[in-house]
Amino acid sequence: MTRIAVDLAKSYRLINHGPTVLVSSAHGGKRNVMAAAWSMPLDFAPPKVSVVIDKHTWTRELVEASGSFALNVPCRAFARQTLAVGQSSGREQGGDKFAAMGLETFDASEIEAPLLAGCVAWLECRVIPEPHNQQAYDLFIGEVVAAHADARVFAQGRWRADVPQELRSIHYVAGGAFFATGEGFEVG
Amino acid sequence: MTRIAVDLAKSYRLINHGPTVLVSSAHGGKRNVMAAAWSMPLDFAPPKVSVVIDKHTWTRELVEASGSFALNVPCRAFARQTLAVGQSSGREQGGDKFAAMGLETFDASEIEAPLLAGCVAWLECRVIPEPHNQQAYDLFIGEVVAAHADARVFAQGRWRADVPQELRSIHYVAGGAFFATGEGFEVG
Repeated sequence: MTRIAVDLAKSYRLINHGPTVLVSSAHGGKRNVMAAAWSMPLDFAPPKVSVVIDKHTWTRELVEASGSFALNVPCRAFARQTLAVGQSSGREQGGDKFAAMGLETFDASEIEAPLLAGCVAWLECRVIPEPHNQQAYDLFIGEVVAAHADARVFAQGRWRADVPQELRSIHYVAGGAFFATGEGFEVG
Repeated sequence: MTRIAVDLAKSYRLINHGPTVLVSSAHGGKRNVMAAAWSMPLDFAPPKVSVVIDKHTWTRELVEASGSFALNVPCRAFARQTLAVGQSSGREQGGDKFAAMGLETFDASEIEAPLLAGCVAWLECRVIPEPHNQQAYDLFIGEVVAAHADARVFAQGRWRADVPQELRSIHYVAGGAFFATGEGFEVG
């Protein structure tokens, strides 16, 4: 598998189609990851994203303390881990959900948060502090400062056609039910 | 086609998987519709959504004036119209993009905005005013006050399995390229 850097101007395309993401974070030697169905791009240039991070999560503490987070885009082969990550708290797993769940990571280029191996795209983000949004809506806004993708699914600023099912991004509904990203088509 | 009311507590499921939506609005006898890839649920109870509405759009004026908007979830059979709606301004079409494009509508139950026939789910929303978000990020927050779905795709609080391709929701990427919502699967 080859990981490529994604031009920041095209990074919104990694989540423009609304996949479920995993939010990873780290601060002071602690790290965590949670699932988030509620994220979206917020601007093109500089690229921004928004994501909902519940105030009861440990991720929330780490994101607020570090001022950064990563959005990792899981694929269908990673759906079981995505659900498991979403259903457990890092606080209750000896402080390292990655180790507890056997999740491999690699280093981000610009932020402290680890990036998840087995995902297919990654956006490294710095929090733009908006205390009212964070407090009232659990809503975080981040500027994308680096982005990467698995070259098997995304190259030259575009999602590839004919990506095998197991490498397609996924879209959570509820109760363990997902949709895979389906057929690509163009409207001319 | 039968339209059913969707329980507000389950309404988030209509957009939890990240489909592209059409934002309809009306005020003082004027009405408009735009496409938005950037929307997401924001809370369960009361249900809230967020959506990005550029300050140069006519939709923006109508949403700010009326304090309401609807999110219409288009299906694949409506993809051509979705792209067309996203590429034109109602201001330049004699003030009624619906008429100019031959789009049929029906009345919302709680708000002034028309709902688009040919879509498969509808969320009627009242704006929760957040002037800073609106100004700085073009970000609108709405409370969902009514929701409806085409019973062929969503019933009893769930997306149906085996929805035909033309009735599946769609996910915009860029440049006229979409993904259809793909196969549903469960992780147990």
